[in-house]
Amino acid sequence: MENGGGKKVWKFRAKGELASEAHVSIRGMLEMIKGGLDGGDERPIIPLGHGDPSGFTFFRTISTAEDAVVSALRSGKYNCYSPSVGLLPARRAIAEHLSQDLPYKLSSNDVFITNGCTQAIETVMTVLAHPNANILLPRPGFPMYEARAVFCGIQVRHFDLLPHRNWEMDLDAVEGLVDDNTVAIVIINPGNPCGNVFSYHHLAKIAEMAKKHGILVVADEVYGHLTFGSEPFVPMGVFGSVVPVITLGSISKRWVVPGWRIGWLVTTDPNGVLQQTKIVNCIKNILNITSEPVTFIQAAVPDILWGTKEDFFNKTINILKQTSDICYNQIKEINCLTCFNKPVGSMFLMVKINLSLLEDIKDDVDFCCKLAREESVIILPGCSVGLKNWLRITFAIEPSPLEDGVARLKSFCQRHMKKK
Amino acid sequence: MENGGGKKVWKFRAKGELASEAHVSIRGMLEMIKGGLDGGDERPIIPLGHGDPSGFTFFRTISTAEDAVVSALRSGKYNCYSPSVGLLPARRAIAEHLSQDLPYKLSSNDVFITNGCTQAIETVMTVLAHPNANILLPRPGFPMYEARAVFCGIQVRHFDLLPHRNWEMDLDAVEGLVDDNTVAIVIINPGNPCGNVFSYHHLAKIAEMAKKHGILVVADEVYGHLTFGSEPFVPMGVFGSVVPVITLGSISKRWVVPGWRIGWLVTTDPNGVLQQTKIVNCIKNILNITSEPVTFIQAAVPDILWGTKEDFFNKTINILKQTSDICYNQIKEINCLTCFNKPVGSMFLMVKINLSLLEDIKDDVDFCCKLAREESVIILPGCSVGLKNWLRITFAIEPSPLEDGVARLKSFCQRHMKKK
Repeated sequence: MENGGGKKVWKFRAKGELASEAHVSIRGMLEMIKGGLDGGDERPIIPLGHGDPSGFTFFRTISTAEDAVVSALRSGKYNCYSPSVGLLPARRAIAEHLSQDLPYKLSSNDVFITNGCTQAIETVMTVLAHPNANILLPRPGFPMYEARAVFCGIQVRHFDLLPHRNWEMDLDAVEGLVDDNTVAIVIINPGNPCGNVFSYHHLAKIAEMAKKHGILVVADEVYGHLTFGSEPFVPMGVFGSVVPVITLGSISKRWVVPGWRIGWLVTTDPNGVLQQTKIVNCIKNILNITSEPVTFIQAAVPDILWGTKEDFFNKTINILKQTSDICYNQIKEINCLTCFNKPVGSMFLMVKINLSLLEDIKDDVDFCCKLAREESVIILPGCSVGLKNWLRITFAIEPSPLEDGVARLKSFCQRHMKKK
Repeated sequence: MENGGGKKVWKFRAKGELASEAHVSIRGMLEMIKGGLDGGDERPIIPLGHGDPSGFTFFRTISTAEDAVVSALRSGKYNCYSPSVGLLPARRAIAEHLSQDLPYKLSSNDVFITNGCTQAIETVMTVLAHPNANILLPRPGFPMYEARAVFCGIQVRHFDLLPHRNWEMDLDAVEGLVDDNTVAIVIINPGNPCGNVFSYHHLAKIAEMAKKHGILVVADEVYGHLTFGSEPFVPMGVFGSVVPVITLGSISKRWVVPGWRIGWLVTTDPNGVLQQTKIVNCIKNILNITSEPVTFIQAAVPDILWGTKEDFFNKTINILKQTSDICYNQIKEINCLTCFNKPVGSMFLMVKINLSLLEDIKDDVDFCCKLAREESVIILPGCSVGLKNWLRITFAIEPSPLEDGVARLKSFCQRHMKKK
């Protein structure tokens, strides 16, 4: 099969499952929807699609954080490679920071610094992958888990989060999914995309269930502390002595700097199960052949974590409380949309579309495409997070454009209502 | 298999091939060797093990680059997520920058920005992996290729770089390794670890060979332009119309900022073969589920690329020329070590150990461990880059510690020489 004078034959080919144009990621879906915007609409585009309010002045990160990064960079000491597990002072600061909410102290050895939470997800999935393994993922959920699980060859089993039960799971139903090849359950708390916050009691039951079946708990707490209802944020690591927990987090949401790419994978496992089962070795080895986060930003982490005053966090919480109220209350007035629960955490709520009331909307993707074209409002179709004919709406933008966006959503719905 | 009162059974387990303590990476090996340093030795540790001179004042990056990063950060406009393929202005700047050395113009669509070259390697290996695929890798080489290929399930076939032929390859021998499942050949030019630079003529022959057999050329040019002999650097992309080339590079080495994690994967393929074969789609899709580089550093890339004057590069080239001379000339005077070629590019040279002249040194790892303990000099054993009983030495440090380090290496060798 050599190439002569005629048509050339190339032996390399694209990996089948990766070569398609499918919009499996949130990013891919939002780009597709944005592609349909009407360039002639002179109104501002209202972005209610993704959890990144960093572009709004009100959500600008604290200057302490920027100063810490500039100072680390200007020192000239951190242009070098970082250790693959992360810089020691940053690991130590994250350990101490998270330990404040735990009944035991984490050590710097429990902390692995990653390129945002995305790389932490990638790492945990890679480590858990073995032939026939399956993993329990929430539906609705964050699609990166499913994408990475499939990529790693882990079978996905979904358990439902129940809108009528404050988006808690039915633990009996979850247990029905477990078999001898189930390796882990993923929980996302505060909830993306549901805006819920799990109670201490519910988390305790999840821990007992996981212990009973010998499965790991992967706790995505990227929205940790971003709560504004009566339910306080309880980190899953509180139950680390019941069941080993791998906690994933980052500074992306709480400090509103997703582009800085500082995340972590933390073993909250006082009994050392993850050491004994060599999961920890495995994490180190995979990080050893993976690109590490930027060194000078890591160097700034201790100052970022310890230098940020409560004022800054309170400001964010207050605005999210305000915008979640606006969003929830105004959507309640839209006939064809139902929001079962007032959001109390994260930056999102889930809304069900009643298609039978609309006359020319096929499904959630069609809804979002037409909404973008007609109203310049970007919303994520629920199918991207596992619930077809729902919408995931972020309220993490400033109040004024949010009100504008929801008003446009309302007028869109009214225009497409079936005539009685 | 439920967990009752007795010993708990955990169902998750570590991925076998990743759970070992093996020092497969350069980083892992160097850490092991550093672990044996004698804390009582009051002399400074001389790091000749890895290609990161950023800690030396002389190699401090240009202030233009630091200013560009600070300015992007301070603008507050780049705390957001970046598109998964990279920021458009950065992609465009890299395309224009690389096009200066090519007979055709790259477009921004040819450029994918990665977390350093490491993520570019990861991406290309992931994309090329399909059942039974094999890839041709140089020996000696850069172990990340082998690690990632094995991780992705690609079979590795090594071709030798020949010290007696200026570290060129024997193309007949390379062709002997090719079969119908061979997807690509990796070349690293300027050479890590050999310090060689391939001639235009040799690169042209590689391109013809690859075309004949229908395989892709992956050109690692992370040390691009870092040449200081008579052979100029020729990018493999020059032959992009003969054979599709994927070029991997970064600002890590030329700007001496490996910790900033800005690399790229560039398709140099004017015939569009990589589009037709859907390799490009595959690259986009894998980047869509992977963490992207820091947004504000990407935003600084145009100013970094266009704002850096030749003076800065010349300064680096001049010091590398000087230190490579010191290293080569002084090692020539050590009886049990042989360096076949004066380095003319990159930051490394390869040195053969004549073990028969040494009385208590088992192999290259033993050599480097004892050297670290006795002389506080860190050198990488050749086995880490595929050549057992060789050494890879970096000369990318300041002249004075380099001279000190090589003098200690000499006294180590003399002390361990067999008595006549």
